[in-house]
Amino acid sequence: MLRVGYPLTLPAELLHDFPEEIALIAIPDDPDHVIEIDVWIPDFFPGRACRQWPHLRGVRLVLSMIAGVEWLPALVGPEVTICNAHGAHNVPTAEWVVTAILAVLKQFPFYLEVQHAQQWKRRFEAGARYATITGDARALYPPVMLEELTGKSVLLVGYGAIGKEIERMLTPFRVDLVRVARRARLDPKVHAVSELDSLLPNAEIVILILPISPQTHGLIGKQQLGLMRQGALLVNAARGPIVDTGALVAALQSGRMRAALDVTDPEPLPQGHPLWSCPNLLLTPHIAAASPQCAPNAVRVVAAELRRYLRGEPLRNVVQPGALTALRS
Amino acid sequence: MLRVGYPLTLPAELLHDFPEEIALIAIPDDPDHVIEIDVWIPDFFPGRACRQWPHLRGVRLVLSMIAGVEWLPALVGPEVTICNAHGAHNVPTAEWVVTAILAVLKQFPFYLEVQHAQQWKRRFEAGARYATITGDARALYPPVMLEELTGKSVLLVGYGAIGKEIERMLTPFRVDLVRVARRARLDPKVHAVSELDSLLPNAEIVILILPISPQTHGLIGKQQLGLMRQGALLVNAARGPIVDTGALVAALQSGRMRAALDVTDPEPLPQGHPLWSCPNLLLTPHIAAASPQCAPNAVRVVAAELRRYLRGEPLRNVVQPGALTALRS
Repeated sequence: MLRVGYPLTLPAELLHDFPEEIALIAIPDDPDHVIEIDVWIPDFFPGRACRQWPHLRGVRLVLSMIAGVEWLPALVGPEVTICNAHGAHNVPTAEWVVTAILAVLKQFPFYLEVQHAQQWKRRFEAGARYATITGDARALYPPVMLEELTGKSVLLVGYGAIGKEIERMLTPFRVDLVRVARRARLDPKVHAVSELDSLLPNAEIVILILPISPQTHGLIGKQQLGLMRQGALLVNAARGPIVDTGALVAALQSGRMRAALDVTDPEPLPQGHPLWSCPNLLLTPHIAAASPQCAPNAVRVVAAELRRYLRGEPLRNVVQPGALTALRS
Repeated sequence: MLRVGYPLTLPAELLHDFPEEIALIAIPDDPDHVIEIDVWIPDFFPGRACRQWPHLRGVRLVLSMIAGVEWLPALVGPEVTICNAHGAHNVPTAEWVVTAILAVLKQFPFYLEVQHAQQWKRRFEAGARYATITGDARALYPPVMLEELTGKSVLLVGYGAIGKEIERMLTPFRVDLVRVARRARLDPKVHAVSELDSLLPNAEIVILILPISPQTHGLIGKQQLGLMRQGALLVNAARGPIVDTGALVAALQSGRMRAALDVTDPEPLPQGHPLWSCPNLLLTPHIAAASPQCAPNAVRVVAAELRRYLRGEPLRNVVQPGALTALRS
């Protein structure tokens, strides 16, 4: 019988969603003995998963409950087959992106200050903030108190499952969307990432939602930030190291641009790091996918992959083929 | 030639959008003499408009640049025809509603505190906040750090132009939407406001976007707030007095519910008012429509109404018929 190790912390009622013809073996955060399993479902938090791994033996297949598994190959080695939780967290991650964009455009961080200060009339400060960051020097009346998302130009960098979900959620806002992915394709039109530098100057909002890899590490550096227009908003819901943190801090401190980040480099971001207090920055501590639906959705995706494996069908979410898939093909 | 008074503060380039066959007369904030005009376009801010009015003579028609004109009949009297700026501010107002809902569900006010404190690990406090306000006592793993809008039950109270725009922007979130308006109708199904009390207990989010009137004043009182479920979110983007402020303060202080308000009663909300510091409240100082597109959109709607008037066509946005319309019909 196939032995499947899962995190002990997983709510018990979710175990019913796994196929019956397996032996489910709970893996504690810090196992005190060696555990023999065939398939490993690591903890949601990479830090905990890394503590579990040294105690495991016999693992041939890793079924991750998260999408970003760039840390797994180095942990388990090249022989182990790795699948990610493709599609499990599209909705909350895309929702976070839309929320972050809207919150910045509506100056919600400033209005929370106003609420705490209990000073209704400070709303008239929003116009100067808008003029300073965007460079729009027109004397507008009534005074500007927020911006609209509707009609803005958006550069979507990454067009996988989450990128498509973001596009879907942006539809009612009639944004002018330009897509970028590793390779150019048509229908819908997607530009190759090699065209990125020529596309950056046109975007009012740049969304990063692509996997981290040697090719995307540092993709947004000093040069790319310099190509963004005055007041443009950079949104990172992918992985921190896709952006050069030092260059981002400098660009934000110069007042040239805005950013909304759910991921940083390093992570966790230590207290006192200059990024925390940059102007025009909204920073959340890697929370986008952690909704009440997170575990149920992840288990659903992992259980489906497990059923395919048991039936001898091709796995769908392979990110590292490993020996298992190599033997099969 | 028809004399049309407009606020002097209106950006000059927008005057080109008005029809040519009229005399445009600028009205300052505090006129120092009597001004004879036929049509009055009041300032965006009711306070300023009220200071302009006593200096005006001959006004037969008022074309407002805002949607909520409940204060105008008492100012100009029953003989004057009043039109509002129907449709001019649908987009930013609906965007504010979606932003406010998402920001509350994502606990952005809490995460801004975390950002200021520079304490990444405080994200683990979000789960207790979620459990306390919603009453969801399940031991969830991974810990809850935010909620999803997708799939939530929404009660949309008010189904005019802005209500429909809100519905459109909520479409990608696959919410379970129930509509309420003054009168019941079909296709799509809209419930009568008389059914409100029976509908409130089912909603996770209640959105108020209906005009203020003697019928809607105090529509949401102690009884209605008591009918809302634990952790439900009340969103008011309409007018403050639709909600009983004292009852709302009590409900928020009891920890039973959440609210997001762009309007309050009284307005401006004075410093020290207990509403400012209620728990689980996001409060912005009546800003929803004040985007850079505000004046251009308002002028577009008002100019179209003015052209209809000049051509002798029926006016479209009449909210008080007055003598003008009475004579015509």
